[in-house]
Amino acid sequence: MLTEDFHPDTTLDKLGEECGIFGGFARSGNVKEIIRKGLFKLQHRGQESAGISCGEETQTLVKAKGLVMQALEDSAIEKAEGRFGVGHVRYSTQGGSSAVNAQPYLIRYMNEHVAIAHNGNVEKAMKIREKFEKIGEVFITNSDSEVLLKRIVFGLKKPPSQWTFEEIGTCLGDDFSNGAFSLALALPKRVVAYRDPVGYRPLFVCEAKEGCFIASEDIAFTGLNIEKVIEIMPGEGVEITENGYCIKRFYGQKKECKCVFEHIYFSHPASNIFGRNVYMTRVELGKTLAETDSIDADIVVPVVDSGIAAAIGYAQKSGIPFHTGLIRNHWVGRSFISPTQETRVNKVREKLLIVRPLIEGKKVLLIDDSLVRGTTSKEIVTMLKKAGAKEVHFRLSSPMLLNTCLWGVDIPTTQELIAAVYKEEKEIAKAIGADSVKYLTLQSLKDTFGQTGWCYRCFEAQKTKDENPQSKTLALTK
Amino acid sequence: MLTEDFHPDTTLDKLGEECGIFGGFARSGNVKEIIRKGLFKLQHRGQESAGISCGEETQTLVKAKGLVMQALEDSAIEKAEGRFGVGHVRYSTQGGSSAVNAQPYLIRYMNEHVAIAHNGNVEKAMKIREKFEKIGEVFITNSDSEVLLKRIVFGLKKPPSQWTFEEIGTCLGDDFSNGAFSLALALPKRVVAYRDPVGYRPLFVCEAKEGCFIASEDIAFTGLNIEKVIEIMPGEGVEITENGYCIKRFYGQKKECKCVFEHIYFSHPASNIFGRNVYMTRVELGKTLAETDSIDADIVVPVVDSGIAAAIGYAQKSGIPFHTGLIRNHWVGRSFISPTQETRVNKVREKLLIVRPLIEGKKVLLIDDSLVRGTTSKEIVTMLKKAGAKEVHFRLSSPMLLNTCLWGVDIPTTQELIAAVYKEEKEIAKAIGADSVKYLTLQSLKDTFGQTGWCYRCFEAQKTKDENPQSKTLALTK
Amino acid sequence: MLTEDFHPDTTLDKLGEECGIFGGFARSGNVKEIIRKGLFKLQHRGQESAGISCGEETQTLVKAKGLVMQALEDSAIEKAEGRFGVGHVRYSTQGGSSAVNAQPYLIRYMNEHVAIAHNGNVEKAMKIREKFEKIGEVFITNSDSEVLLKRIVFGLKKPPSQWTFEEIGTCLGDDFSNGAFSLALALPKRVVAYRDPVGYRPLFVCEAKEGCFIASEDIAFTGLNIEKVIEIMPGEGVEITENGYCIKRFYGQKKECKCVFEHIYFSHPASNIFGRNVYMTRVELGKTLAETDSIDADIVVPVVDSGIAAAIGYAQKSGIPFHTGLIRNHWVGRSFISPTQETRVNKVREKLLIVRPLIEGKKVLLIDDSLVRGTTSKEIVTMLKKAGAKEVHFRLSSPMLLNTCLWGVDIPTTQELIAAVYKEEKEIAKAIGADSVKYLTLQSLKDTFGQTGWCYRCFEAQKTKDENPQSKTLALTK
Amino acid sequence: MLTEDFHPDTTLDKLGEECGIFGGFARSGNVKEIIRKGLFKLQHRGQESAGISCGEETQTLVKAKGLVMQALEDSAIEKAEGRFGVGHVRYSTQGGSSAVNAQPYLIRYMNEHVAIAHNGNVEKAMKIREKFEKIGEVFITNSDSEVLLKRIVFGLKKPPSQWTFEEIGTCLGDDFSNGAFSLALALPKRVVAYRDPVGYRPLFVCEAKEGCFIASEDIAFTGLNIEKVIEIMPGEGVEITENGYCIKRFYGQKKECKCVFEHIYFSHPASNIFGRNVYMTRVELGKTLAETDSIDADIVVPVVDSGIAAAIGYAQKSGIPFHTGLIRNHWVGRSFISPTQETRVNKVREKLLIVRPLIEGKKVLLIDDSLVRGTTSKEIVTMLKKAGAKEVHFRLSSPMLLNTCLWGVDIPTTQELIAAVYKEEKEIAKAIGADSVKYLTLQSLKDTFGQTGWCYRCFEAQKTKDENPQSKTLALTK
Repeated sequence: MLTEDFHPDTTLDKLGEECGIFGGFARSGNVKEIIRKGLFKLQHRGQESAGISCGEETQTLVKAKGLVMQALEDSAIEKAEGRFGVGHVRYSTQGGSSAVNAQPYLIRYMNEHVAIAHNGNVEKAMKIREKFEKIGEVFITNSDSEVLLKRIVFGLKKPPSQWTFEEIGTCLGDDFSNGAFSLALALPKRVVAYRDPVGYRPLFVCEAKEGCFIASEDIAFTGLNIEKVIEIMPGEGVEITENGYCIKRFYGQKKECKCVFEHIYFSHPASNIFGRNVYMTRVELGKTLAETDSIDADIVVPVVDSGIAAAIGYAQKSGIPFHTGLIRNHWVGRSFISPTQETRVNKVREKLLIVRPLIEGKKVLLIDDSLVRGTTSKEIVTMLKKAGAKEVHFRLSSPMLLNTCLWGVDIPTTQELIAAVYKEEKEIAKAIGADSVKYLTLQSLKDTFGQTGWCYRCFEAQKTKDENPQSKTLALTK
Repeated sequence: MLTEDFHPDTTLDKLGEECGIFGGFARSGNVKEIIRKGLFKLQHRGQESAGISCGEETQTLVKAKGLVMQALEDSAIEKAEGRFGVGHVRYSTQGGSSAVNAQPYLIRYMNEHVAIAHNGNVEKAMKIREKFEKIGEVFITNSDSEVLLKRIVFGLKKPPSQWTFEEIGTCLGDDFSNGAFSLALALPKRVVAYRDPVGYRPLFVCEAKEGCFIASEDIAFTGLNIEKVIEIMPGEGVEITENGYCIKRFYGQKKECKCVFEHIYFSHPASNIFGRNVYMTRVELGKTLAETDSIDADIVVPVVDSGIAAAIGYAQKSGIPFHTGLIRNHWVGRSFISPTQETRVNKVREKLLIVRPLIEGKKVLLIDDSLVRGTTSKEIVTMLKKAGAKEVHFRLSSPMLLNTCLWGVDIPTTQELIAAVYKEEKEIAKAIGADSVKYLTLQSLKDTFGQTGWCYRCFEAQKTKDENPQSKTLALTK
Repeated sequence: MLTEDFHPDTTLDKLGEECGIFGGFARSGNVKEIIRKGLFKLQHRGQESAGISCGEETQTLVKAKGLVMQALEDSAIEKAEGRFGVGHVRYSTQGGSSAVNAQPYLIRYMNEHVAIAHNGNVEKAMKIREKFEKIGEVFITNSDSEVLLKRIVFGLKKPPSQWTFEEIGTCLGDDFSNGAFSLALALPKRVVAYRDPVGYRPLFVCEAKEGCFIASEDIAFTGLNIEKVIEIMPGEGVEITENGYCIKRFYGQKKECKCVFEHIYFSHPASNIFGRNVYMTRVELGKTLAETDSIDADIVVPVVDSGIAAAIGYAQKSGIPFHTGLIRNHWVGRSFISPTQETRVNKVREKLLIVRPLIEGKKVLLIDDSLVRGTTSKEIVTMLKKAGAKEVHFRLSSPMLLNTCLWGVDIPTTQELIAAVYKEEKEIAKAIGADSVKYLTLQSLKDTFGQTGWCYRCFEAQKTKDENPQSKTLALTK
Repeated sequence: MLTEDFHPDTTLDKLGEECGIFGGFARSGNVKEIIRKGLFKLQHRGQESAGISCGEETQTLVKAKGLVMQALEDSAIEKAEGRFGVGHVRYSTQGGSSAVNAQPYLIRYMNEHVAIAHNGNVEKAMKIREKFEKIGEVFITNSDSEVLLKRIVFGLKKPPSQWTFEEIGTCLGDDFSNGAFSLALALPKRVVAYRDPVGYRPLFVCEAKEGCFIASEDIAFTGLNIEKVIEIMPGEGVEITENGYCIKRFYGQKKECKCVFEHIYFSHPASNIFGRNVYMTRVELGKTLAETDSIDADIVVPVVDSGIAAAIGYAQKSGIPFHTGLIRNHWVGRSFISPTQETRVNKVREKLLIVRPLIEGKKVLLIDDSLVRGTTSKEIVTMLKKAGAKEVHFRLSSPMLLNTCLWGVDIPTTQELIAAVYKEEKEIAKAIGADSVKYLTLQSLKDTFGQTGWCYRCFEAQKTKDENPQSKTLALTK
């Protein structure tokens, strides 16, 4: 019960996002079941904890560490009833995960309940928290979400049932207009949701036979008898009551800044985020990468599962045959490797198997969507070489990761980012043992998505003091 | 994991108190182990949940539903380290138990941590809560403890490491001088504890080789290498640092009002509360009861375990032989009877066995410490009659329970209190099927403890409008 | 889930018996519920594992480590259905407990099922096992029960539905007539039970409104609408079908040899075993002990819970007041002390609390039913002295334990038995730190129960080579 | 703990095999860790239960329901020590799974231990079982493995330490020469393994730095420092001691009959079974299928994960682009859908997501390896049509499944096999809602693998009485 879960992707050295949200109104009264199924489909956005709050006038909260299927098993949610609710899946951040930070987060105010489920990071949260503390306000969690909620309460000072959609929006817009948030509140017999004015994170509303719902990605609605799915625009939100939904603007137009990494890695391949299908976009990135690549490989192999779409695109454009030469073991459940013993490297070795006849004596073109620390990639390259690969050429369908994120993506410090440390493709290839490494250029990425309207911050070098040379070797030894 | 536990006493229709607390400083660094052992010895004060918060500059909190041995098992408290801490066991109140109300309660304020463990009820908490909400303060729990803590934060508005013992005491005294509280706070490298100015609940400090500790009852210190145990007086508190402890007054003398039920039922028989040994006091109450009783019984049988001491006293004074004619099954662990199926009555039947040759054809004098709803007693009388008892005379070593409690004791409404409904001993005897019922008189109780300095409120009839006659039959049918 | 349970009595250095059984036919079809309740009342006979097998033509088996309430919780027994069944609670033997030895034990033979639940030890089992192995028979467990069952199968070689009560009895009587067994078999639509011809272990049958049942002790039937309870005589058994029960002799009369320890310690105080009530017998033993004792003590204190009845008897006869000066903590559930860390001594200290005013400055007469290794007693004497007892005189309501048992009682080797090592009461007193020790004499015990018809083997000195003197000091240091 | 797990493949209407085995000798003494990792890589061969038995002279057994990572978590295998051992993963058969059938299976014989882990089904087991029962032998489980072991014991009648490799082989060969088995025995300080004379199931031995090991598939050795991997031939076995391994023949050459379904579906794509790589074989089957197909589709989409390799082969041969248009949710852990509520259909819907832009308005060529009942396929076709597919053409890279299996593959009755019911591709297409269905022909399959040396039984029509026409509609409505 108390051991940590072993999550496939967290062992594969990928970036993590803060979370996914789902909420709404279910005509049938069983909103918890619909939220749970929705969260299950958003599980890729967060695997540390899962929670549901639901009710009518008041809310009942259930949350626990673990995957949706474990944390929200039948017996856990047995007592949660009602037609209105919000749910949340949370990503396991490097810096220690604490049960207290699991969401939704439920407060009691003036004899009423409010539950919040929040995806994103709000730059100014720390400052506002301090401001509140100076006047005697107390905080339970470390999360921005508590600050957001307190800001609303403090701004409105009346029972939640009397908070209007616009008033809440004004509180959010006033102090957090540059922050990243897609959030939902369950109020007495009402659910409201807001997407931040710059639009970092996605948010959707769905009208279905079963009721009205919001979610971080449109695929979360799959399985419902859908009548309409609408992407909420930056600065807009939605109010859901038993009479239906209403999309409204709560803050003036700002320069859009949508997170491009949602397409590169975070979102589900089947999702349609920021107006584009994710799988198709990734195939396109793979094709673009192939266009500027002249390597003469025998086979294109994806790092599973993140590199599959790009690899298919690359193979189609280049004519080099695509094969799943690496196969992942999905029968994971809980790990028998306790967190203290584990090393990332060994987990990779236990979980990936190689189809040797595909690799032996071949020039392998290995593709992944992105490269963070390089630890996993180094291990995979080593495995391929050991399995007899003549050459291993590593390709990335996104540019070099050079900078941290201020809006909710959990990127390690630049001292840990392999591209920030080694800077040159040649050096990176040496560090991970590959015969060559090639990234998609930032210019190609911008050509694909557009010069503006997107956030490319993590691909742009931080202007900092030089790191001392010895730090170069640190990244891969840990 | 999610099933409710089956607690012997909660099935026996007894009153419940809010909780027990334990805290302090352990030289060894392993304060959690000492707190856990202390809470285990205070388990009779609360069986719903248990928690420990400990640390040095910051605190780590572990709490869960269940008994101390389950909720705080080794793996649960593994990561809690440090020399300073507080712990709490919580009683399962009738009105629905929620994990959110488990204690200790931990806040983050100005980058520092404060944990609170609180025993008692504060009359004015609701009003103060509302006052805070009006200025935009948010509450997570329903508990008084959150209000107390918020009151302190609001009153001091500086980092907890700068809160002085006296300043905290002033915040408590100003607003809660008539409330019932024995509470402890774990602050950065410091533990402070306070007993309310009227002294409803007990509180002790212990100096031992292992460190300095506070607890609700002195027996919680058993097992330590004790050097000194001191009962904290009403309006006093204690400050514990790594240099030792210091007892200080934080509020002026008020008229004492110690809870007499601590002696009658709540506290452990081995404890020495409010200057008296509990077991000896109960034996004395049994003797007093015998003095004014003229029944000619064959055998004195206690309702186990609550009536044992009084029964021994009664037997010694009356000369009627004492026998444990009812034997309880202690091999309980978790119940296989799920909470929804259960009935109090059946649980009693499953858990008590009768030594028939002691009962058959005999006039049985059955003794318990108190009578709440009468459901269990009725069942026991029925069992004894079925086992062949010629007569069953029921005796109580405390007066009729006629009123609710404002200071943390969970007494049912007067409509459920058998004495408040039936009023006459004869009527009560009829209701539970006994041949006679006799209570200790309130005057005898006051003679034993003293006319003043004690709270007798629950034995004094509420002055309310007459209940309609038909309500008389309700109590025992539920 | 995998941690060992913490069983009150096993920490108190008492003897352990092999187990308790319950079985029968329930008209309602829900025999599992009745068996479970019966086993719960027999829990004192075994705390290591619990199991139920039930069905109609075929049987479904559920068994697990732990107390009845844990091992047989609702979800565990969900799929077990049917009107016929047997159940078992097993004692945790010193020599390592293994899940494979949990009972009942279920076999598939000629497309039919047989389940066995067995209490006792069969001297010749090992020899018969070897005989079977020589002809190629395989064994799964270490238990006698598997040998018994194999013996029956081998003797009958036909489908279990065709086994007659008499044929099974002949198989048992032929080879195990000197062994100790009370056992029950669940066969297709039938339950049969047998008590060995010398009658070491008790066995009862009950006719009730709910059906017909057998059990190790009569109190296991409490709660049923009982019409008749009959003690099965040595060499007799009972056959239960949907038409009722029939008691039959399966083996000729032998010299009875009932286990006297069933009265001294094993059986429940409320039980009526071998024609006598257990509680009344223990009171009588306490009185007999007092008659020959001339100590002038201030107070009689029982070692809880085993010494209570004898202490009451002693106090009544001697006129010295009885008080529960030691109080046990029953809120145990699971231990947080993992099995490897634990020491018997510390567990005692954690679980017993002393009522100091009863002990301080007093001459304490401490009574228990028996003394095995002396480790717990030494610890209790130390605690009493530390609490201020002027003198501690230890009394035992049974004779010195000097010998091992061949029929299922788990007695340590004579090197570990304190009475076998120190021989003299004076020496034993010194070893446990008491001011005096006094046992009931074997003659007094025989006067109480009868010169013949009872097994007194464990009180009779083994005729062996002298142990070397240094072994004397070993017993208490471990 | 007691809820059933939710296993991806069992919901996808695929065939199931009995199990996978792993065993051997680990120089380090920690054989359990190597077995556990090996079983983890064999998890696709069985997901119901997992077990390890290991030791030196004697064996300790741990087994439980669930995946390897759950059933064999650290705390579960804590007490299993030793250098010699065997392990097992077991498939969940339709006909009810029982804990008693979990393997390994451990017996105690002549004071020694033997553990068996067995993959396969032995035709004559039932008859031999009956023969044994007639002479009084008792069986605990329903499994063939117990019969095999009893046959050996009965044949040898001496302590297991004295059983020679050849003697055991003779026992197996004499009675089970036409059965399917790959099995391993852990004996005192020795492990022996045997592959049946016709060679239905695979078996490998590996010499590594860490010791010598056997496994059902060679990929199970991945992660060891391998020096040599050898496929055990039909009628051969291997004996492993602390001095190394020795491959020996135990039975004369018979006509080989290797299970072709090991290549089609059971074995891991990365494995090299019966002298061929599985992935490469599947790609080849896909190509062969394309050669005889003339459909003009827009896209080739595999049913994940079973159809991937064949789909890649088909796409390469046909030139139609390959895309993963169906994406599976691997974040499963435990299901929140309790077994009783579930329907296969809904689970598919919850677990598969469609990349709509790939499907909308397209002629989709959907490929899977095989078609059993057709329930899942019907559901997938429906989902694709609902997502806008213009046409869905279903292709199978193996022939029609028409017959049951006698050697351990869990095939439904022919009444449930869609191909056996509908017989014609056109009718099958209608039944599952596809625009066309096309199977690989049995002749093509034989051309790929060879006319002889392989078992094609399940693809050959059973010669039975005609089913009545109305049964045709039954298959898909359930």
